[in-house]
Amino acid sequence: MINSDNIEQLDRQDPLATYRNDFHLPSGLVYLNGNSLGAMPLKAVVRARQVVEKEWAEGLIGSMNTAGWFDLPVSLGNKIANLVGADPGEVVLTDSTGIDLYKVLSAALQLKPQRRVVVMEGSNFPTNNYMVEGLLEQLGDGYGIRYAEAGELVQAIDDDVAAVCLTHVHYKTGGILDMARITALAHAAGAAAVWDLCHSVGTMPVELNTCGVDFAVGCTYKYLNGGPGSPAMLFAAKRHHGRCRQPLTGWFGHAAPFDFDPHYHPAPDIRQMLSGTQPIVSLSIAEIGIDLMLSANLGYIRDKAMKLTSLFIEGVEALGRGNELVLVSPRIAEHRGSQVSFQHDNGYAIVRALHDRGVICDYREPGIMRFGFAPLYNSYADILHAAEILGEILKSGCWADTCYQYRETVT
Amino acid sequence: MINSDNIEQLDRQDPLATYRNDFHLPSGLVYLNGNSLGAMPLKAVVRARQVVEKEWAEGLIGSMNTAGWFDLPVSLGNKIANLVGADPGEVVLTDSTGIDLYKVLSAALQLKPQRRVVVMEGSNFPTNNYMVEGLLEQLGDGYGIRYAEAGELVQAIDDDVAAVCLTHVHYKTGGILDMARITALAHAAGAAAVWDLCHSVGTMPVELNTCGVDFAVGCTYKYLNGGPGSPAMLFAAKRHHGRCRQPLTGWFGHAAPFDFDPHYHPAPDIRQMLSGTQPIVSLSIAEIGIDLMLSANLGYIRDKAMKLTSLFIEGVEALGRGNELVLVSPRIAEHRGSQVSFQHDNGYAIVRALHDRGVICDYREPGIMRFGFAPLYNSYADILHAAEILGEILKSGCWADTCYQYRETVT
Repeated sequence: MINSDNIEQLDRQDPLATYRNDFHLPSGLVYLNGNSLGAMPLKAVVRARQVVEKEWAEGLIGSMNTAGWFDLPVSLGNKIANLVGADPGEVVLTDSTGIDLYKVLSAALQLKPQRRVVVMEGSNFPTNNYMVEGLLEQLGDGYGIRYAEAGELVQAIDDDVAAVCLTHVHYKTGGILDMARITALAHAAGAAAVWDLCHSVGTMPVELNTCGVDFAVGCTYKYLNGGPGSPAMLFAAKRHHGRCRQPLTGWFGHAAPFDFDPHYHPAPDIRQMLSGTQPIVSLSIAEIGIDLMLSANLGYIRDKAMKLTSLFIEGVEALGRGNELVLVSPRIAEHRGSQVSFQHDNGYAIVRALHDRGVICDYREPGIMRFGFAPLYNSYADILHAAEILGEILKSGCWADTCYQYRETVT
Repeated sequence: MINSDNIEQLDRQDPLATYRNDFHLPSGLVYLNGNSLGAMPLKAVVRARQVVEKEWAEGLIGSMNTAGWFDLPVSLGNKIANLVGADPGEVVLTDSTGIDLYKVLSAALQLKPQRRVVVMEGSNFPTNNYMVEGLLEQLGDGYGIRYAEAGELVQAIDDDVAAVCLTHVHYKTGGILDMARITALAHAAGAAAVWDLCHSVGTMPVELNTCGVDFAVGCTYKYLNGGPGSPAMLFAAKRHHGRCRQPLTGWFGHAAPFDFDPHYHPAPDIRQMLSGTQPIVSLSIAEIGIDLMLSANLGYIRDKAMKLTSLFIEGVEALGRGNELVLVSPRIAEHRGSQVSFQHDNGYAIVRALHDRGVICDYREPGIMRFGFAPLYNSYADILHAAEILGEILKSGCWADTCYQYRETVT
């Protein structure tokens, strides 16, 4: 049973407890939206000042070499490789998740030039599906998406399939797909496996190479706390380097970018996945959150994520009003990522009422309240507090517009 | 004749003189590489702190609305529209120049689905050619680039051509192409006109709509002083909105991004050119340089650019050693942008010697020294000083590695 005594004990015993001091957390808020935008690590302020006031202002264009700007996509990628079970030289930080997905799926499709089907979850975060629609429409020639939900994947993956393109942890339910099993299924059918790690990187150990994954993308501004819109991660297994090529062939992906060769010759390594100059300030700041995550133990993080989500479910349901709320996330901790989603007919109004009471979560149709838990900075006390506030709101029925001062902060 | 007296007079009479105080210019340097990375406006420090320490740290995900993050690509695009002769709603700031070129050329080719030829300058900045190679290779089906230099364009633009894709001011020579005339030629042949403004935006009035340009891209970290790798500008003429579509179809380009529609429906306006979440810190900082440029008079900027480049050519050639240096830029001021390039057999070593003497310019093969002039912060005294130092280096012959302490700052 969740109560203030055992919660205090859990926080005292938390091996990650000190990480909370590395973040700025606005006073009066319980921030449970790190699955949308992670909180700011304090050192990000120092890094921002360094890159703007020193590297740009003083170093000017020379910082391309002297401050390592040119190599940042690869050097930061090598750091992230340690979080996702990849080898050095298999990951870059560049562009956005959507554009990176376009790149890796373009490359993946070249591995099976005779096949025309891409398997995706229809309930996936829509932008992934949109990007793949855009790519396949551009390719024409019979390409199409075969939509399948988690339980239908075994059926859906057959030998028409060129690539299986799935999100490891579902953005809405937090459900985890079995990366090892589905990748093996894809390979058995002769298809490539492409994974989106947006909601898993930084919340659990990810083993891309152990699972034999072909390509992956992921977000650095959620659980990696890289700052708003910080560039995305892109993984390409070494065995595919030089074998297939992404079509956004800018000079950063050229074998010799400073030779100013009139024609494109692809870099033989992960650099071929790069296109143009990166937003250096945003990219540089991202290193702070990545370094913090690298210094933590991913096993502890996963363990805490399971405990936080379990305690939150238990706490909310203990309010005795569980019949109003439908748990959308898997009930078994091992099956869900670091978020809990509940559905309620008045979900949107309740999320707004929670905001007004200082509990920041977000809303997704239909009626779904998403609570994201960042093991590095969320405490067990946060969970208890959020569950209590939610309980009070449900008890009072006070979520209608008339009950509280409206403040638009929901996105 | 250029001398210290009339130089002082020119700086006193310069209507843009006070703008120099708005920038951080490292002491002891004459920075003539703003055509690669512009200097830092002082207020960029303030903006960086605001977006990191307030909007991210305190506002968290709520800043997507409350700080206007979601609208930044459009709101900053509307500001840039004023610099390039576009209307509100025709410009966005997003992604990189190369990726934006891929987007707009994809859209442009849909206007002429039966045609297969794209006209480009072979001597263009290579990444543009690479991006177009990548796109056309992906499209297959007979698509190809027809390379033509400036003098060959009239011949090259015939009714096989789907799009003419040119850079307004040449990155190496600074030569200006006649946007009005070439766009008219393209249209007369039934082709679309796509322009790259990387080396013209912020150095001269650009009149996209007066010239009837179809699409354009451009850089914000050169003469707009947006910071290293700040996102690029993308222009699509209003008449094409809804008529043709770029293939990087992320949720920011959806007609209703927050409806989480399972299928992509393109926004009917300029937002269709957007794809994913932008690097907000880099994007926000870019506004400072854009605002500075908007507050200046583009006519004065163009006038000063012509004077600075003319005086530099005159100063360098007055050294009496003109026979060693070949002027690569147009000799007529009206025909060149805000840069001057000289070729010398020992160009690379001389650029390094200039760096050691505090004159920052850059080098491009073969033997070309590029001097970029930013009318907002370069003074006439800068030009005289740079010409004198170059003269001393040439006179001494002291540019070999043995003559000076090597410092690698050339990129």
